[in-house]
Amino acid sequence: MRIDINADVGESFGSFKVGEDEELFKVITSANIACGFHAGDFTVMNSTVQGAKKNNLSIGAHPGFPDKQGFGRRNMNMSPNEIYEMIIYQIGALKAFCQIHNVQLAHIKPHGALYNMAAINSSIARAVARAIYDIEPNAILFGLSNSEIIVAGKDLGLQTAQEAFADRLYDEEGYLVSRTEPNAVLATVEDVVNQALRIVKGNEVRTKTGNIISIHADTLCFHGDGKNVSSIVKKVRMVLEENNVKVAPVELSK
Amino acid sequence: MRIDINADVGESFGSFKVGEDEELFKVITSANIACGFHAGDFTVMNSTVQGAKKNNLSIGAHPGFPDKQGFGRRNMNMSPNEIYEMIIYQIGALKAFCQIHNVQLAHIKPHGALYNMAAINSSIARAVARAIYDIEPNAILFGLSNSEIIVAGKDLGLQTAQEAFADRLYDEEGYLVSRTEPNAVLATVEDVVNQALRIVKGNEVRTKTGNIISIHADTLCFHGDGKNVSSIVKKVRMVLEENNVKVAPVELSK
Amino acid sequence: MRIDINADVGESFGSFKVGEDEELFKVITSANIACGFHAGDFTVMNSTVQGAKKNNLSIGAHPGFPDKQGFGRRNMNMSPNEIYEMIIYQIGALKAFCQIHNVQLAHIKPHGALYNMAAINSSIARAVARAIYDIEPNAILFGLSNSEIIVAGKDLGLQTAQEAFADRLYDEEGYLVSRTEPNAVLATVEDVVNQALRIVKGNEVRTKTGNIISIHADTLCFHGDGKNVSSIVKKVRMVLEENNVKVAPVELSK
Amino acid sequence: MRIDINADVGESFGSFKVGEDEELFKVITSANIACGFHAGDFTVMNSTVQGAKKNNLSIGAHPGFPDKQGFGRRNMNMSPNEIYEMIIYQIGALKAFCQIHNVQLAHIKPHGALYNMAAINSSIARAVARAIYDIEPNAILFGLSNSEIIVAGKDLGLQTAQEAFADRLYDEEGYLVSRTEPNAVLATVEDVVNQALRIVKGNEVRTKTGNIISIHADTLCFHGDGKNVSSIVKKVRMVLEENNVKVAPVELSK
Repeated sequence: MRIDINADVGESFGSFKVGEDEELFKVITSANIACGFHAGDFTVMNSTVQGAKKNNLSIGAHPGFPDKQGFGRRNMNMSPNEIYEMIIYQIGALKAFCQIHNVQLAHIKPHGALYNMAAINSSIARAVARAIYDIEPNAILFGLSNSEIIVAGKDLGLQTAQEAFADRLYDEEGYLVSRTEPNAVLATVEDVVNQALRIVKGNEVRTKTGNIISIHADTLCFHGDGKNVSSIVKKVRMVLEENNVKVAPVELSK
Repeated sequence: MRIDINADVGESFGSFKVGEDEELFKVITSANIACGFHAGDFTVMNSTVQGAKKNNLSIGAHPGFPDKQGFGRRNMNMSPNEIYEMIIYQIGALKAFCQIHNVQLAHIKPHGALYNMAAINSSIARAVARAIYDIEPNAILFGLSNSEIIVAGKDLGLQTAQEAFADRLYDEEGYLVSRTEPNAVLATVEDVVNQALRIVKGNEVRTKTGNIISIHADTLCFHGDGKNVSSIVKKVRMVLEENNVKVAPVELSK
Repeated sequence: MRIDINADVGESFGSFKVGEDEELFKVITSANIACGFHAGDFTVMNSTVQGAKKNNLSIGAHPGFPDKQGFGRRNMNMSPNEIYEMIIYQIGALKAFCQIHNVQLAHIKPHGALYNMAAINSSIARAVARAIYDIEPNAILFGLSNSEIIVAGKDLGLQTAQEAFADRLYDEEGYLVSRTEPNAVLATVEDVVNQALRIVKGNEVRTKTGNIISIHADTLCFHGDGKNVSSIVKKVRMVLEENNVKVAPVELSK
Repeated sequence: MRIDINADVGESFGSFKVGEDEELFKVITSANIACGFHAGDFTVMNSTVQGAKKNNLSIGAHPGFPDKQGFGRRNMNMSPNEIYEMIIYQIGALKAFCQIHNVQLAHIKPHGALYNMAAINSSIARAVARAIYDIEPNAILFGLSNSEIIVAGKDLGLQTAQEAFADRLYDEEGYLVSRTEPNAVLATVEDVVNQALRIVKGNEVRTKTGNIISIHADTLCFHGDGKNVSSIVKKVRMVLEENNVKVAPVELSK
């Protein structure tokens, strides 16, 4: 039994500091690095790639909408073509930092509103998957478990990693309950640990109404800007390993 | 006898249209493509790479300061490290569009205030050259003839192309007279044609005081946002060819 | 019989030049000035207020989404509170230029996607109207004829001006046919002139299916970035005046 | 004996949180509020004006260069005219939030690189002072003690407040030692308290070479993004008050 743990990092911007990347690097296995649109900048990207490399993490691009004020969390009405080009640009920029540090760009995960739109809108999902296919076909596409983005990636022959959230409440259809609703984020570390175990070992998750639905996860996501996120991840990882789960990056297929 | 003719293209931004790229593509041999910082965006970059490829032009990255309002023409006080990272980012983004269209990124030329600062400041010149060396060492560095950027490029073993301006007035030291001064831009097409011939065939240029100084040019630059620039370039190219000058991209050394 | 003619101006941004403001100033009666978010900048705003004042135009603020690349035409998912604050900011900035040139900010019209969202979404409409009420309650709110924004403005006691489009095709519900559809923009100057006359003198407009629906217009809008817009407006104005329509700014009520 | 204590606040931007404004509000007497260019945004400005009002602080505009990545700390080569227009815009935007909360915009202080440039460059100093004179002539101009900006303000008849820094090392000419030099920021709270007392009660300050130079201060500045700044200010204020210094906003002259 095996699981990857990913988190969004490199979200600082100039003097605006976000997150606790150094602590996270020690407990996660995959780093999703912001590409300068919703967060991050060329200086932050450079040091974040170096930090992720030093900690032997899988390095991923985390492209998002061009909206720093909204942190890429506001839906923007862009055409699939624009989204395709926007992702090509951001992946290209991050690849350049991978190149100068001689590391592989191993995965790509859309951010925020783009992630959510690509999970439910097949045109956007295909635009995202096509961009990855055209610029880094060996990279693994990370997306919401059992959603449109996974379908689009598989259709193009991309390797995909289905993602689940140990700290978020699910609805009956397997989507995340919106953060604007109460209880959208699990309240205690124990709840998070238990949900992680249930997802990874049981392939299931409890929904907001108390039902149990099945879910498959190759990777668990934690939000880099959350409070005490690194200590939560540390605890989750410890318990998973105590339960004989190997915590490691998603394996690239040959 | 041989000369390249380059121009800045891809400087539109969203609905803001700049230049006459389609006409320019027919008369230049090297296209310097804006990378989304001082001008251009991911959509413009995509179509500009396609247009340049279709016209068999040498494709170049044209990185600049992150200042669209100022069009990259305002000096910004950035450290050499920041400038290095900023150029890595922009070249990476343009390379991605080259990759999806299966063309080579053949040259790199800093833009605007960055171009001018790199011509006279050796720390900045070295940062620019180092970025090119690290990300695309086979690309040709375009810079002001006989300036610090050429020195920095040669020191790293980069292939360089020395650039001269057929439509700009020179001072005694071989720098361009600032656009804020009267007569900084030559007044007539005849003047431009004559200066082009003098530079290319005579390896010399007349300065603002009437002296003749020596200059070496591998490439002539024309500004893509100038008035009637494509018809001026067409005329210059015609006269050069009538005078047995081969107009073609700078040859990449083996 | 009386009508105002308004156009969006001040949409240039740094070196990016848009529109033919000088020509438009001579034929319109109300100037909607971009406020630096979707278009315009502090320099452009300063000169545009001066130009509008010189031509005795009604000066209006034209706030939009913070999205220059998309020219404010891409829907952004912002809360009514954010929209309220965004409009306060932009109106405040434009008022400052009105103050230094000693002219009145006489009207306010939301731009692009914000205009369209405020026409159909009552929460957004109320946020826009509330911002105007709080910062410039004597200004006239310009909005799509017979839409939510007009309702929201009237509810707060704002003076409103209902806007119609002489050059755009209408659907059965009185909304504009999207520019992405064919025939969304009327093809000939004659069509535009005829639609202007029908709206102003007949209080009606022909829809895309050929039906006639009633419409009330206090002001006709022309897009400042359209082709030959000033010559089209000149023609429309001439014909209106030949038909005994007084072309003048909306009168401020006491 | 009387002194004002000011700090930069409202420097958060979207999800990017900066500073400890709530704690600072309790110990300072003047709040310099970022205006959305180098930091801040319309939402942050709205809540910051409310917070400052609630704490009965003097409310000030803190305009800076349009450079969020650089936090307005990178010199940008803008003309005095551009700087004038840029300040008009930013003050106008902040005034709008003052208006909706029915408070007075009481002072204006340029930020970062603009502050430093206005202290030594008389053309820029005059552009800044002129903007204030044109848009809010009753506001107090805050600037570096004994510098060009104070001269420019007095020349226009503006009320000025000379500013000193309790936590920064001074050079022989009365300028601040650059943060890039070691010891530029005083090491201990005791040093800061002592420098505050020396400036306020003795009208003098010790320079980096150990000399004593005279200095006049109407207001002491503390940086809102510094570590533990509110506890340092609290201590300074306590000691000043124990020494019979009244800590209060600069009095507006009649």
